[in-house]
Amino acid sequence: MARKPVVGVMGGGRSNPTVDEEARQLGTLIAERGWILLNGGGDAGVMAASARGAKERGGTVIGVLRGKTTRGASPDLDIAILTGMGDARNVINVLTSDVVIACPGRAGTMSEVALALNSGKRVILLGWDAGDGLAHFHRKGQLTRANSAIEAVEQAATVIADLHEG
Amino acid sequence: MARKPVVGVMGGGRSNPTVDEEARQLGTLIAERGWILLNGGGDAGVMAASARGAKERGGTVIGVLRGKTTRGASPDLDIAILTGMGDARNVINVLTSDVVIACPGRAGTMSEVALALNSGKRVILLGWDAGDGLAHFHRKGQLTRANSAIEAVEQAATVIADLHEG
Amino acid sequence: MARKPVVGVMGGGRSNPTVDEEARQLGTLIAERGWILLNGGGDAGVMAASARGAKERGGTVIGVLRGKTTRGASPDLDIAILTGMGDARNVINVLTSDVVIACPGRAGTMSEVALALNSGKRVILLGWDAGDGLAHFHRKGQLTRANSAIEAVEQAATVIADLHEG
Amino acid sequence: MARKPVVGVMGGGRSNPTVDEEARQLGTLIAERGWILLNGGGDAGVMAASARGAKERGGTVIGVLRGKTTRGASPDLDIAILTGMGDARNVINVLTSDVVIACPGRAGTMSEVALALNSGKRVILLGWDAGDGLAHFHRKGQLTRANSAIEAVEQAATVIADLHEG
Repeated sequence: MARKPVVGVMGGGRSNPTVDEEARQLGTLIAERGWILLNGGGDAGVMAASARGAKERGGTVIGVLRGKTTRGASPDLDIAILTGMGDARNVINVLTSDVVIACPGRAGTMSEVALALNSGKRVILLGWDAGDGLAHFHRKGQLTRANSAIEAVEQAATVIADLHEG
Repeated sequence: MARKPVVGVMGGGRSNPTVDEEARQLGTLIAERGWILLNGGGDAGVMAASARGAKERGGTVIGVLRGKTTRGASPDLDIAILTGMGDARNVINVLTSDVVIACPGRAGTMSEVALALNSGKRVILLGWDAGDGLAHFHRKGQLTRANSAIEAVEQAATVIADLHEG
Repeated sequence: MARKPVVGVMGGGRSNPTVDEEARQLGTLIAERGWILLNGGGDAGVMAASARGAKERGGTVIGVLRGKTTRGASPDLDIAILTGMGDARNVINVLTSDVVIACPGRAGTMSEVALALNSGKRVILLGWDAGDGLAHFHRKGQLTRANSAIEAVEQAATVIADLHEG
Repeated sequence: MARKPVVGVMGGGRSNPTVDEEARQLGTLIAERGWILLNGGGDAGVMAASARGAKERGGTVIGVLRGKTTRGASPDLDIAILTGMGDARNVINVLTSDVVIACPGRAGTMSEVALALNSGKRVILLGWDAGDGLAHFHRKGQLTRANSAIEAVEQAATVIADLHEG
């Protein structure tokens, strides 16, 4: 296929400067690889920061939004997918992503990690642990941890290479 | 409102006899309270066992199914809601429930716990821990643990009483 | 299967007294047959009237709601399925129904008629025509017209009998 | 906003050479305008033809797919949004589009026309009539007919200009 890889970046709408800076850097690295960045499209936290980073490097950003309009959307989206489905859009986020990188978040992020794993997607936790509830997926290698944006993107690159060979 | 309380019972399709027995007992207790039991509707694991338990006591069971047909549905459903939406139906499960009781499961169950918390629902973990990723919700009392089906139902009764007063 | 048949009643939230009266009568006839009535759950127009009619005869009413809460729901629902998905819930309405009876409405009702036909469901138009765009389905007998609530319910009874034999 | 306009092209998966040729031409005209083309993403009928046309002119094509994988997707998609939601994805198609152009189709297309109108979107029917059921929307100017791809795109241009002024 000729389509560019899509990397989903999940993470909280209410984050902090350290997490935001890592999300921004993650966005720049994804764009530099020539991948498409997909996130929840909001103008807050990890969503806004990762989109901004990707646009700094001329990348493409898809936001899959909860609402029926672009109200509250990040200004850095190239494409705004409007679902009007609230949290059910989390399923679309993970299915559309070739690999998911999850920054720290709360229940919304945790739901995306779990939905991604349930759909058979590879998930990379950037700088946090999801807890014992998902230990099964660590053991089978479907869920891994990265300690930096650079490491997360390197892991993602391996996943994407495997998908294209597979 | 005159509608009966709806208690969502989440949990894995692939469980074990101990978990299934607890899920069955949970179903009986929910029915005895006069509550409606809602689950994912499948003919496996916690879904099948909790539905069976509720029917043993003449309760009402709603299954919210992943598919477009009743293929693979538990024979103990009174009402089969057909979504054709796969995991996006997990959102419907938690929104429709007045309170969620989660038996042990894997990623699907974890996604329902997380989605429920993200929607502001009270969640009771029956016999397991969801891990540190959701510790925030333990601290604020939105997520609790119960060590038996009886204890879970007692906690649910308190939640339901509060909802009806509120 | 032991589950009761589910008859979906579609129709506009903004109707008129004549349509509402027919919807109410339709609800009474569905309840008298022992079928479950399913609709969009709102406290307006065909939804409110059909639910009221069914409850007058002690029937069971399921409302599949657009929103995340029961705000704006008909008081006559036995079960309120909360989707938070807006119009995407129309898909659930038609998939869950064994047969669909559509009272006059506008675009929302037309979307449900079309979605039902696209899912292979039998659709009965009560007192209106959907237009040439769906003539194909008239020709193959999947879409029919009824001129009264009594006639619509008789047609539905035939569909349900065929499903249970099939 | 800097985002490019998104034009939804709806239409049947089972079409005919005449309709396909018009859909292909529609795709070329949309791409020449610099707009993004969005459709249901399948490798058949109007979906495949419109995507092919857009790619012939170097346009961008988004396919919002029914399934969880890209199986059966058009090879001409730049971005494949995977929903796993079947017909519920029709809602996403119309919400995401700034304006909808509907080529001839059957129930799926009719559902998208109706859902688009219900969401307040402007809809242009290319070479067919949706029937009396939607006459209300013709009268208020939300639904119009175009007799050629060129005319449809000219109408769409007016809609888009109004949105950007509005």
